[in-house]
Amino acid sequence: MAEFRLHGFGESGNAYKVALMLALSGADWELVPVAFFKGATREESWRANVNSMGEVPVLEHRGETLTQSGIILDYLATVLGKFGGKGEKEAREIWRWVLFDNHKFSSYYATLRFLYGLQKTGETPITEFLRGRAKSAFHILEKHLADRKFVVGDRLTIADLSLCGYAFYDEETGINRADFPNIEAWKARIAATPGWKPPYELMPRAAGG
Amino acid sequence: MAEFRLHGFGESGNAYKVALMLALSGADWELVPVAFFKGATREESWRANVNSMGEVPVLEHRGETLTQSGIILDYLATVLGKFGGKGEKEAREIWRWVLFDNHKFSSYYATLRFLYGLQKTGETPITEFLRGRAKSAFHILEKHLADRKFVVGDRLTIADLSLCGYAFYDEETGINRADFPNIEAWKARIAATPGWKPPYELMPRAAGG
Repeated sequence: MAEFRLHGFGESGNAYKVALMLALSGADWELVPVAFFKGATREESWRANVNSMGEVPVLEHRGETLTQSGIILDYLATVLGKFGGKGEKEAREIWRWVLFDNHKFSSYYATLRFLYGLQKTGETPITEFLRGRAKSAFHILEKHLADRKFVVGDRLTIADLSLCGYAFYDEETGINRADFPNIEAWKARIAATPGWKPPYELMPRAAGG
Repeated sequence: MAEFRLHGFGESGNAYKVALMLALSGADWELVPVAFFKGATREESWRANVNSMGEVPVLEHRGETLTQSGIILDYLATVLGKFGGKGEKEAREIWRWVLFDNHKFSSYYATLRFLYGLQKTGETPITEFLRGRAKSAFHILEKHLADRKFVVGDRLTIADLSLCGYAFYDEETGINRADFPNIEAWKARIAATPGWKPPYELMPRAAGG
């Protein structure tokens, strides 16, 4: 059994954030595939035994079970000694962006991509609403990256790994990537990191299997 | 000048989370009122000088400026020595719930309450969508509180202060509070803490002033 066991599936950008952290750190990890589209995370037994919040990622390590990608990334930064903050002030700045990601960036964009790109609902008042919110968050990151190579401290940190999770998927969202050149350049820098792989090469898809 | 300066306004549940933390800790703090409904947080100068993310709360303390309620609460737990985790494992459990709050609980509920309760859009596909998501998150917390007095560790922590922020507002959201008796009992326990005040007694409204 590998040292780290990650419950997830290819389509989950939140699981990809953790898979990427493990891959870029050279950790000994394995995927525990979750049959999301067959309703696995909505089952009572899964919620009782794996995660009461009904979400992936879930990380098992040293007998402990962790959920929520933000605290999993923070935990891994400590135990693997990679991509964390240098000092308390920088650690707080990293948390600020991880929270922004959870609250405003991944949240709206991931939901938009789920409805529009995976469920293929077509354009609805809901996808229009989510796209408006997602674009506002994209503009804030785009501006922040105007004079920076990475989100915090001029090197790759878990702030980048959190924010980039959903940005590496290709499903259609109705957002024009050319409108956000700083974000595209930042993604290219992340993708140039040794060990980087796109989502579906790190974890197999749960749909269509 | 007070030791802690909080930029916020009465209607912001995210600012209320921090105001409540400061009030319950007996801290020396003052409010810097933000004219949200006059567009203050959307102004270029405010974004450049106060918060590039365009959001409250913002906390000034010892020459540092912090934003995002989650990391502000964590910072205050450390500097005030109140409502934090006992040990690393409990601190991670607190972060797990603060992240759930930002990602799934406050996020959808606050947006629903903003549209339906403050902007009074009436029922739309968007408010229906947000209410469905908010209720899913409420059910997860409701179940978690079935055999617990507080969210983590059987005492008040910043996990409670984060999750309760929007739950103490009275504006209409179309969610029936009687459907969530454990959440109502938990709110009553929080409200019984010495120093507790409802949102509009801690911070004046920005609207209608």
